[in-house]
Formats: sequence, structure tokens, C-alpha cells
Amino acid sequence: MDAKEASATDLKRPREEEADNNNTAVASMETDNSAPAANGEQTTKEPACFSSVIPGWFSEMSPMWPGEAHSLKVEKVLFQGKSDYQDVIVFQSATYGKVLVLDGVIQLTERDECAYQEMITHLPLCSIPNPKKVLVIGGGDGGVLREVARHASVEQIDMCEIDKMVVDVSKQFFPDVAIGFEDPRVNLVIGDGVAYLKNAAEGSYDAVIVDSSDPIGPAKELFEKPFFQSVARALRPGGVVCTQAESLWLHMDIIEDIVSNCREIFKGSVNYAWTSVPTYPRHVVGVIGFMLCSTEGPEVDFKHPVNPIDDSSSKSGGPLKFYNAEIHSASFCLPSFAKKVIESKAN
Amino acid sequence: MDAKEASATDLKRPREEEADNNNTAVASMETDNSAPAANGEQTTKEPACFSSVIPGWFSEMSPMWPGEAHSLKVEKVLFQGKSDYQDVIVFQSATYGKVLVLDGVIQLTERDECAYQEMITHLPLCSIPNPKKVLVIGGGDGGVLREVARHASVEQIDMCEIDKMVVDVSKQFFPDVAIGFEDPRVNLVIGDGVAYLKNAAEGSYDAVIVDSSDPIGPAKELFEKPFFQSVARALRPGGVVCTQAESLWLHMDIIEDIVSNCREIFKGSVNYAWTSVPTYPRHVVGVIGFMLCSTEGPEVDFKHPVNPIDDSSSKSGGPLKFYNAEIHSASFCLPSFAKKVIESKAN
Repeated sequence: MDAKEASATDLKRPREEEADNNNTAVASMETDNSAPAANGEQTTKEPACFSSVIPGWFSEMSPMWPGEAHSLKVEKVLFQGKSDYQDVIVFQSATYGKVLVLDGVIQLTERDECAYQEMITHLPLCSIPNPKKVLVIGGGDGGVLREVARHASVEQIDMCEIDKMVVDVSKQFFPDVAIGFEDPRVNLVIGDGVAYLKNAAEGSYDAVIVDSSDPIGPAKELFEKPFFQSVARALRPGGVVCTQAESLWLHMDIIEDIVSNCREIFKGSVNYAWTSVPTYPRHVVGVIGFMLCSTEGPEVDFKHPVNPIDDSSSKSGGPLKFYNAEIHSASFCLPSFAKKVIESKAN
Repeated sequence: MDAKEASATDLKRPREEEADNNNTAVASMETDNSAPAANGEQTTKEPACFSSVIPGWFSEMSPMWPGEAHSLKVEKVLFQGKSDYQDVIVFQSATYGKVLVLDGVIQLTERDECAYQEMITHLPLCSIPNPKKVLVIGGGDGGVLREVARHASVEQIDMCEIDKMVVDVSKQFFPDVAIGFEDPRVNLVIGDGVAYLKNAAEGSYDAVIVDSSDPIGPAKELFEKPFFQSVARALRPGGVVCTQAESLWLHMDIIEDIVSNCREIFKGSVNYAWTSVPTYPRHVVGVIGFMLCSTEGPEVDFKHPVNPIDDSSSKSGGPLKFYNAEIHSASFCLPSFAKKVIESKAN
């Protein structure tokens, strides 16, 4: 691994300290062979999210999408642990490859992770000429790093991920995703993204990518106004941010708030894009959205990418599977029910 | 109801006759109050698809998408019956309104039916000037009729649906969808779409819309070459067809075959479009695709709609919720993994 890792204790916030003081047990990184395979046995070690469903199936249920569930057939549980922040599970699924689950919510599957990782990265980076300095908040699996690394103009990639267990688990079980950590331009900091951004030099980044989980767990603050203000401050004039922004089909209320906040804070352009990711977070509905904003300065027209990605120059990750310039532009075309709401807030 | 209904016994094929000879019991249209509500009780009358999952939940599992399931919380089962062709269930869900299920697969929910119905209808009808005569194969819930009826230029709407129970159930439980049957331009024939098209006058339709279920039940033949040949024959020169064409994420093999067949048969243009429909058929992944083809004749550029829909002229159905001209064009932009395969077959 070429990436530099810094344990940023100065970035810890109260909830993190509490967890430390409690000496919360962190599960071993060894493969947990006593975990139930897909044979339907109930053991005391079975993750909670396995118990309420078909034996041998993982089921994703959340107050974020009441009344529905998405289930994948489990071949074998490969890892289960409890970090300072969340429950972490890795299982081998029958048809989606290995699956990473945080607090009961699917974060990535080997089969479809390409769509989310490519879109959240290339939507912002292909919208500005010559990005050099990029910050990734969250994204501990390394997939966004893999995608940022495709851009030859990039000289420095800072990442701040709150949960070291996510990084470790990804390196162990998802080598094709965690390959992103091997890029020598990557500086990994384990710490809180909110604090990290507060301490970041003003106007220092060309792009910030916020690859977070839902606003009900450790990522809650990443959807709030002070965080967006820190992002805007850390960006250079005409710099861009892309944040995971929930699903049109489920969370128009959350999206409406995010758009309003962004409109107040980002004085350049404010846009919402969406794409299809079968199992990705907020994903029961197979759709995930992104907020794309720019700060005051050189104009950014997100709908017309100016910085096409040269696939052949990529050292890691192979050819792009999902992203292309047409999909980029198309992702900003919204269904009528969402267009009305979002355009009234964004303009 | 203004629509004319014809019982087309001459259109029956062997499998339909067999079913008749067996005197297959057709369930009463009365609300089945003995069916289990969301209390987890197992009764002998519980639909098979309810038994293998969380008690009180409906779960959608199919050989079409092995290893995964989509589940909705059931408030109350409103109807369950067995037609000559398939199992038919209607239930009240906790968060998606009423849901229609055929052979264990969700066909529509009140919450998101707009997306599928609007796209499968307006993609073809907005791509040609002045459509007058339209044929709908399948679509027994009436939602496509509701959408076709928005087009003031249309003078005649023929529909051939194989399963009368679907029509009856929709009229009873989904009045906002079945409202399509009330349009006086509609001629409803209960019969087999394959036979109907064989008997249709050559060159008689401006557009054919095939709103079918998956290619493993009664709709199997609607995905095969002879059917597409009949469609092409029934269309006028430069006429268009739109068929439900599965999900990119699950069924690239099926899609590849359909595209190849269409390329051979339709001498105009051949295109694949896709959109997001959280729960709609093939749908675990929240994505559904459409094949859009035109016959030899006046050129049809599906990506640039020439016949914008005048929302205000619609008598039924209220304003469009999903479709707009931007979404129309955007739906033809494919992810890289699909683009390669489809473009190599389509051109």
C-alpha cells in the first residue's frame, strides 16, 4: 500500500470519544467461520438483520424506507463486526458477489458497485477542466479513490473516512474496490469529515466528493447546512462538490431541504442528478441521486462535461463499466414530479 | 364504461382451450375476507408467495432474478384468484398503495405506476407526428389506455388482452388506472395478442404498444421473432412499436436477442431505452427497458421527439407525473456496459 495513513486523533468528536471510553469491542478481522452460512441455522452470532427474514437470506429494512425490504440470498457470512460507529457485515451473496453492509444497509455489491462509484466521481471531475486537488469524505471502501485515480491531471487525493473498520474490511474482502488505496497520490486520514473540513485550508480543493451513508447514522451531519458551508469554504472559486443525495422516489423531502441549503450556500450552480444502481444505498428503489454544486467563480455547466475521461490512461480499475458522456448529461434530466420541486428550490 | 368489449373466441390458442376444458375454477371477484391480513397467520388460502417470507409481507421471487427478493408490507389482501392464465392477487400495501400481482410478480403499485405507463406510451407516440390508430397488446390494467387517450390526434385505440380477470380486477381496485377503459375510442378484445396481430390488416396501425409480463408466463411468445414479424406487418410504413424489454442489470442476454431479432425485422430504426420504476416488473432492480423500432418508411428519430404532448388537453389522468421531453431523450443514453452490446447488435 502506497497510501499514507494518518490517525487523526485531533479530529475526534464526542461520540467517537465516548465509544473509545466504553472500550467497545471491535470484532476480529478474521473470517468468522462460526457465522451462519445459508443453511438457515439461527445462532446467537447471527446478525440481527438476518433474523427476520427467510432463513439464509439477508434483508434490508430501514426507517428510511418503511414497508419495503430488499433481500439477497446469502451463501456465506464472511465477516461481522461492530466498529465504534456501526455494525459491519460482509457476506457472499448467491448472485451479487460479495456484499458490504453497514448498520443493516447494503453499501456495495461486487456486481453493481461500478455505477455508483463511477457516477459520484466522474460527474464532478469531468465537469471542470484539469482537476488537481480532490477531497473525498467517507468512501472508506476505496472505490471512489479508484475512480479519481483515472484522472491523470489529479495530483493529490485526500480522503477522510470516519471508520477504519470499513477500510480494513474493504482491503480484505473487496480488493478490486480497495485498489484505490494503492494510488500514491492518496492521503488517507481516519477521522471525522466534519472536523476535517473545518480545519481544511480555505479555497484549497478543486473538487470535494462526499460518499456517505444515510442521514440517520454516523453520516447525519453530512446532510446539514454547516457541513455544506465548510465544503464551500474549502473549495477554490469555481470548485465543485458532489454528494450522495438519496432517492427521488423515496426522499423528496430530504432532497428538497438539501437543494434549498445548497442554493443558499453555493453561489455558482446547483443541480440534482440521478442514476440507476440496483442494490446501492437507498436502492430498494434502485435509484440514487447526487447534488452537484459549484462555488462562485469560473462558471460550471454540469450538464455539459468539459473534461472527458481518457479510459485508456487508467492504470487501475480497467475500462469504465457505466459512466460515459451521454449518461453524464442524461443524469440531469428529471421526472416531472421531481423537476417541479427541485427547479423551484434550485433557481 | 364506453369501451366496446368483444369476446374473441376465435382468437383462442391451445393452451387457452386446455384451460377451458379443465374447467379451471375462476375465483370470485368478491373481496376475499378470509385471506390473511398482515398478522402473520398462515392459512391454507394464503398465496404461495406470502409463505416464504416475513409474516405479513409479500415477497417477489422469480427464476428471472435468482438470489434476490423485493418485499412489501401487506396491510390487507383484497383479492386472490386464479384465471385461465395466471394467479392474480391484489393487496393493500403499507407504503405503495394497492398492488397488483400476477404469478407472484408485481405488475403495478398505485405509488409508481405512472413511470412505466407514461414511458411505454409516450416514447412511441411522441416520436411520430399525428398518431391516429394505436394497438395495445396486453396492458389489461388500462393504464396504457389512459396515457394513449392523452393524445388528441388518436382516433382509434384497439386493445387485445388475454386475461379478462386482469381487466375486471383493475376496474374494481384501480379506478385511477382503469379509467383508460372509459375512453370512447377504445375497443377492447379479450383474446390472444399473437393471434390478434396475425389477423390484423396489413399496414393498419401507426403505433403498437406491447405491455406484457415476463417471457416465462403467458407472455412468452411476445418476445419471439414471429410475434415481432406480425407487429411489423401490422404497422404502416414508418410506424412504431414499443415493447417492454426487461432490465439492463439482469437480462442483457434476453435484451441482446430481442435487439438482434428487431434489427432483422424492422427496417427503420431500432433503439433501446430504459427508465427507473421502483417496483415495476423486473424491478427488483428498479429499472425497466423498452425496445423502440420503426418500419421502413418515413424516418423516425426516437431520441428527438417530434410530437410533444399537450398536458392540458388531457381529459383523464390529470397532469403527467413522470414523462417529459428531456426524460424521453435521456432514456436512450445507456451505461457503457450495455451500450457496447446493444449498439453492436442494433446497427
